[in-house]
Amino acid sequence: MSGDVSGDVRGGGGGGGAVAADFTPTRDDRFSFGFWTVGWQGVDVFGGAVRPPLDPVEAVHRLSDLGAWGITFHDDDVSDFGTSTAQRLEQLAPFRRALEETGLVVPMVTTNLFSHGVFRDGGFTNNDRDVRRYAISKVADAIDLAVELGATTFVAWGGREGAESGAAKDVRAALDRYKEAFDLLGDYVVEQDYDIRFAIEPKPNEPRGDILLPTIGHALAFINELERPELVGLNPEVGHEEMAGLNYAHGIAQALWHGKLFHLDLNGQTGPRYDQDLRFGAGNARGAFWTVDTVETGGYDGPRHFDFKPPRTEDMDGVWASAAGCMRNYLVLKEKSRAFRADPEVQAALEASRLDQLATPTLAEGEGLAALRAEAFDPDEAAARGMGFEHLDQLALEHLYGIR
Amino acid sequence: MSGDVSGDVRGGGGGGGAVAADFTPTRDDRFSFGFWTVGWQGVDVFGGAVRPPLDPVEAVHRLSDLGAWGITFHDDDVSDFGTSTAQRLEQLAPFRRALEETGLVVPMVTTNLFSHGVFRDGGFTNNDRDVRRYAISKVADAIDLAVELGATTFVAWGGREGAESGAAKDVRAALDRYKEAFDLLGDYVVEQDYDIRFAIEPKPNEPRGDILLPTIGHALAFINELERPELVGLNPEVGHEEMAGLNYAHGIAQALWHGKLFHLDLNGQTGPRYDQDLRFGAGNARGAFWTVDTVETGGYDGPRHFDFKPPRTEDMDGVWASAAGCMRNYLVLKEKSRAFRADPEVQAALEASRLDQLATPTLAEGEGLAALRAEAFDPDEAAARGMGFEHLDQLALEHLYGIR
Amino acid sequence: MSGDVSGDVRGGGGGGGAVAADFTPTRDDRFSFGFWTVGWQGVDVFGGAVRPPLDPVEAVHRLSDLGAWGITFHDDDVSDFGTSTAQRLEQLAPFRRALEETGLVVPMVTTNLFSHGVFRDGGFTNNDRDVRRYAISKVADAIDLAVELGATTFVAWGGREGAESGAAKDVRAALDRYKEAFDLLGDYVVEQDYDIRFAIEPKPNEPRGDILLPTIGHALAFINELERPELVGLNPEVGHEEMAGLNYAHGIAQALWHGKLFHLDLNGQTGPRYDQDLRFGAGNARGAFWTVDTVETGGYDGPRHFDFKPPRTEDMDGVWASAAGCMRNYLVLKEKSRAFRADPEVQAALEASRLDQLATPTLAEGEGLAALRAEAFDPDEAAARGMGFEHLDQLALEHLYGIR
Amino acid sequence: MSGDVSGDVRGGGGGGGAVAADFTPTRDDRFSFGFWTVGWQGVDVFGGAVRPPLDPVEAVHRLSDLGAWGITFHDDDVSDFGTSTAQRLEQLAPFRRALEETGLVVPMVTTNLFSHGVFRDGGFTNNDRDVRRYAISKVADAIDLAVELGATTFVAWGGREGAESGAAKDVRAALDRYKEAFDLLGDYVVEQDYDIRFAIEPKPNEPRGDILLPTIGHALAFINELERPELVGLNPEVGHEEMAGLNYAHGIAQALWHGKLFHLDLNGQTGPRYDQDLRFGAGNARGAFWTVDTVETGGYDGPRHFDFKPPRTEDMDGVWASAAGCMRNYLVLKEKSRAFRADPEVQAALEASRLDQLATPTLAEGEGLAALRAEAFDPDEAAARGMGFEHLDQLALEHLYGIR
Repeated sequence: MSGDVSGDVRGGGGGGGAVAADFTPTRDDRFSFGFWTVGWQGVDVFGGAVRPPLDPVEAVHRLSDLGAWGITFHDDDVSDFGTSTAQRLEQLAPFRRALEETGLVVPMVTTNLFSHGVFRDGGFTNNDRDVRRYAISKVADAIDLAVELGATTFVAWGGREGAESGAAKDVRAALDRYKEAFDLLGDYVVEQDYDIRFAIEPKPNEPRGDILLPTIGHALAFINELERPELVGLNPEVGHEEMAGLNYAHGIAQALWHGKLFHLDLNGQTGPRYDQDLRFGAGNARGAFWTVDTVETGGYDGPRHFDFKPPRTEDMDGVWASAAGCMRNYLVLKEKSRAFRADPEVQAALEASRLDQLATPTLAEGEGLAALRAEAFDPDEAAARGMGFEHLDQLALEHLYGIR
Repeated sequence: MSGDVSGDVRGGGGGGGAVAADFTPTRDDRFSFGFWTVGWQGVDVFGGAVRPPLDPVEAVHRLSDLGAWGITFHDDDVSDFGTSTAQRLEQLAPFRRALEETGLVVPMVTTNLFSHGVFRDGGFTNNDRDVRRYAISKVADAIDLAVELGATTFVAWGGREGAESGAAKDVRAALDRYKEAFDLLGDYVVEQDYDIRFAIEPKPNEPRGDILLPTIGHALAFINELERPELVGLNPEVGHEEMAGLNYAHGIAQALWHGKLFHLDLNGQTGPRYDQDLRFGAGNARGAFWTVDTVETGGYDGPRHFDFKPPRTEDMDGVWASAAGCMRNYLVLKEKSRAFRADPEVQAALEASRLDQLATPTLAEGEGLAALRAEAFDPDEAAARGMGFEHLDQLALEHLYGIR
Repeated sequence: MSGDVSGDVRGGGGGGGAVAADFTPTRDDRFSFGFWTVGWQGVDVFGGAVRPPLDPVEAVHRLSDLGAWGITFHDDDVSDFGTSTAQRLEQLAPFRRALEETGLVVPMVTTNLFSHGVFRDGGFTNNDRDVRRYAISKVADAIDLAVELGATTFVAWGGREGAESGAAKDVRAALDRYKEAFDLLGDYVVEQDYDIRFAIEPKPNEPRGDILLPTIGHALAFINELERPELVGLNPEVGHEEMAGLNYAHGIAQALWHGKLFHLDLNGQTGPRYDQDLRFGAGNARGAFWTVDTVETGGYDGPRHFDFKPPRTEDMDGVWASAAGCMRNYLVLKEKSRAFRADPEVQAALEASRLDQLATPTLAEGEGLAALRAEAFDPDEAAARGMGFEHLDQLALEHLYGIR
Repeated sequence: MSGDVSGDVRGGGGGGGAVAADFTPTRDDRFSFGFWTVGWQGVDVFGGAVRPPLDPVEAVHRLSDLGAWGITFHDDDVSDFGTSTAQRLEQLAPFRRALEETGLVVPMVTTNLFSHGVFRDGGFTNNDRDVRRYAISKVADAIDLAVELGATTFVAWGGREGAESGAAKDVRAALDRYKEAFDLLGDYVVEQDYDIRFAIEPKPNEPRGDILLPTIGHALAFINELERPELVGLNPEVGHEEMAGLNYAHGIAQALWHGKLFHLDLNGQTGPRYDQDLRFGAGNARGAFWTVDTVETGGYDGPRHFDFKPPRTEDMDGVWASAAGCMRNYLVLKEKSRAFRADPEVQAALEASRLDQLATPTLAEGEGLAALRAEAFDPDEAAARGMGFEHLDQLALEHLYGIR
């Protein structure tokens, strides 16, 4: 199989000439990939590596060729666990040259607090105090590295912060420790005058039976208790919310409402089951449409970051096809979202469904509860009104289908 | 909102002129609807009726106008619980006139063994022996009615056959009773020389905590124990399998493999949660594509039956828009499936993914295990081969998007 | 079946004489029930009423006899939708006499914003502005009623605030409206000098495809944006969190950490599926143990409120048996939690699992990041330490089994 | 933590002296463990090994000391992938000596068709014909090995037989190939006169997006299409069914009804999520009770086999504690099941819930449909009867709690 699957830009597309876009990604699209995505060798609970190690330098060049804008990594993706920051920077020299040659950037860096056995019970909330201290120290090192590489977002996925059984973790004490770590690191970036913000990545479970801060909501609430909440936002992942049966587009809309969508992880999932990390567009196709629609219309201006795992069935050609597909699908859906919002019949349907009224405050300027309680209202008359949602949703679906 | 949403046939559609179909349903499409779908008044656990009762005569005319081919019903949908078959036939006179006037047929009838309080613990497997006897008798009556109306399929959804707690149901005894009922009714239709077959509809839960014969597989296995297995097949519902996180297209493919896909219930669902009964096409959009692809290429020749609930948000205009959407989406997906299978690049990708080899027996004619064990094989070489599935799936997705 | 199932207090119980409690509820246990729980007539999507209407007066007396302390209700449970507050109070006279006679209290009242057709698209976030205004007005009326009855908690379950499809609800606009409603009602109770607080009840879905504020976390985050966050907390329901596969005990622990566990709804559920509302203790038995342990040891001092539905299989005797079971199971688990925490072997195991270290700040007084980064640490040595969680969890399970 | 957690047999236990059992396992209990369970080093998708390799000889001795009766393994657990049978037998000499010394048996052996990269798309249903041939050959080798070791059950878990995307697998063709493999291997064991039967282990997903034969039901149905169905039964795993939200006790009851429960895999799971493989008793505690009750009362006479993964948090002490817990919990629940069935109040409640009627044929000897249709029946009278299930379930729960 040739690797050119994404390069083939198809004209036409969409019915009635509505969609005439070229779905080739450019730097302006700000697509970024975790190095660990294309670099995943296929190790899972049931089997070993099926692909060779990927050189970060090659990853930079291939992603650049595909049209990506950025690459991200965990500290231990690019050098061994335990390497000092100085050594890491030395080892990263060829990687940084590749960045310079290609123009790719490193918008985000993160720490691996989950692979080494020392983190078997997590990092910031590990029952072992010395492990927690080590974890914070490791993150501080990774922040230094991140800043050195120009990253402005530092993602914190607490994948092993959790428990399989009830007595193993005192959740309130663990949240105290979690807060303590973020407060300390917040102080650190302020003291260092670093231009970087934290983005917490929630996940409900796997690899722990239950993970702390399991959803977008729990993480948003947690942030409010921090000493420097302004420094901390979210990095929600499509699949993680869908593993809890939650609507990802709704979730990021709420995060946007709170001003906390700092970064995002785009991929695919098919409902509650193991963390599938399918390429973006696979899995829940309609969810992906509403995700892109929310990202594009909701004021988000960060990277479009993909965190997926090319399935273990694939060789490296398949890996690059999968990466290309992520970007292409985003662009296709972006165009569909634009066409949907521009469609006069859709606009009429939105009005028929009274979305304009939803955007209008319930109370008029200066009005109070008393006025509202005094007014006449016939609930039975109102109950007879249909909302017109089926018609509206059918229009959306037909845009997804490309038949409008 | 006007009711004309489905009549508006859009030309073009799809990229490169590949899709030029008219998505207006005709009788040849053999679309049928449960009367209880468009007739659902919106009663759920949390609220009462929001729509007026629908006259079956009106349903026939409206469905006919929309392009449907058939209408189906539970005995108690069209006349009250407890009505005798003779009275039912009398009451059905206007309904049958409407059928004649429109040409609509009644391909399937079913019995309501779940609404009346007498069925609080089910029908065929109710702990109360007299209720079981009554349930069988009620089904026999409904079979007579079904045959009188020309139905050749009799669906059996055992929605209340199950339990909320462990001791409440001895599953093995209950399966004995379940078998007893089907054996008796099988004898009956043979004795009566009725041209009708049974189709069991599995469901994992709701309204019972756990329902007997919870999936396609369990029902297929059960049928094998019956005295007349040839008379009994399946009526799998999209949402019911997806409530268990199962792949519906895989499920009906297995049912087809067993020769047991007698009927089907098309609708939409978003993973494990309450039974949503969304219109077909809503919910799992990619699942719907593979469902249609499996139905159309897998040798199924029965009705394309919709069992959905127009959301409680809708008035009657919304109900008809929702019904029209079901058919339109099926036709859109049918055309996409055809275009996908006809696409030379897809055909090349299928071959690159060795689907042709999967269709080839593993052993050559006359070959035995000995020959196979003697042959040389290099697993490491084979392990290096990618399967090309990401490329293939991307092609499928682009057909769904209408950009190929 | 006689109704005396709960009255039979069994001595002994538990191994080694550890548990010698009498599981008969008293007023001091502060058990309360929604009137709609024991009053549920069994209407669901698939069937009609199977039990007669329950007189609120009878409910008060029966619950009192069983040992309950409080009864709660929706405005429309005890008088018809649309009744004025004055009329409601008049109609409630016999109910209030029953309260006086029995000593039962009304600690909580709530509004029904979901049953009438006018709320087909919700109340506070309905797309129709006039419906939103009516909903707020209805809640204000119910608050007046609540205060009149002595309630100090007002629960807000926005069961119909949500959507089945993506364009139907602009989530950010809807959250603006949601906030507007709570801000207005917050002002109202302050102006009226009412001694009442709001408790938001999250739910992920059902009856809507996706509900706004789907989990404990999302609601906690939302509250932080309100004008009077101090007036608003949570009423988390066991089954609602478990429908999203989330750990309820973890959830309420986080709510307690935020100081926001104002009320709770105890019941049972078996994972992601329809809202089962099983009696407390049924469903996830170990989850119930940790729930009680968290409630009893976490500083919660509100009512122990049951929100369950006696299954449709039950007659009124079964209803009362089910209600009695809720309280009895709570008391059994409370005693088990006490015994677990008091068990010296458990205490040793907790220490062996370093729960004491988790309770200790990660940084010493006055210590900063620099000190922490400077210290020596051998991750491989630390990685070799087991956490001892299996032993600890086995002890907990044996307390549940009553064999310790 | 000492490893003696299971040896400490506590007297008393249970209320009223009902439970006085000693929960120390003996050979007669026929507990067996997969070597891969206690031998799991903790490698998962997110992290590497945390425990040293376990010598099979040590496993035999430790399991024997704990009271186990058997040990099982995959071919590649005990020697490297690709080793010939002759070499394997040579390498197994110390293992076999350990078996002799301890008296432990090998009741079951299975093949690893999932770890090596060659099986990235499965074994029997791999799209690559040569891989399928190799897979069959590998299984034939493992069968020889199994028989040599005295195993009478050969488990077939097709963990990689499945797909992540729709076109990647033609399910009907794949089932043809699946059947072909079992038919060939069935012929082989008959020709060899081997005393061994196959047990298919269903699983819905993970590591594949969707696995073929996803549930007990699907596998039961499949077996009916084989040439030698009598040779093939099931090995259902608790967690696998619960990952689909299905009731495991119901599932094995149906398997028993079909005469197909050849083996079983006991462990723990908390609903739809990743495959947790918790120790038996953890996870769904009430499900475990009904599982043991069904196994013990349903006529199953095979091994009580544990397939669990001691969590990655544990060191080797924790591993043995976890293994001991599996057996101890089984024995506790077995005693509880016995006490439940023997309890006169339970017996009265079962009768009050008409379980005796469920065990009675619906038709009397010689009775036909006509008699049944002719009889008078008052559905309203019958609808008023409660089933008494809440009382019955409360009794069961109180046995679980040990307070009866």
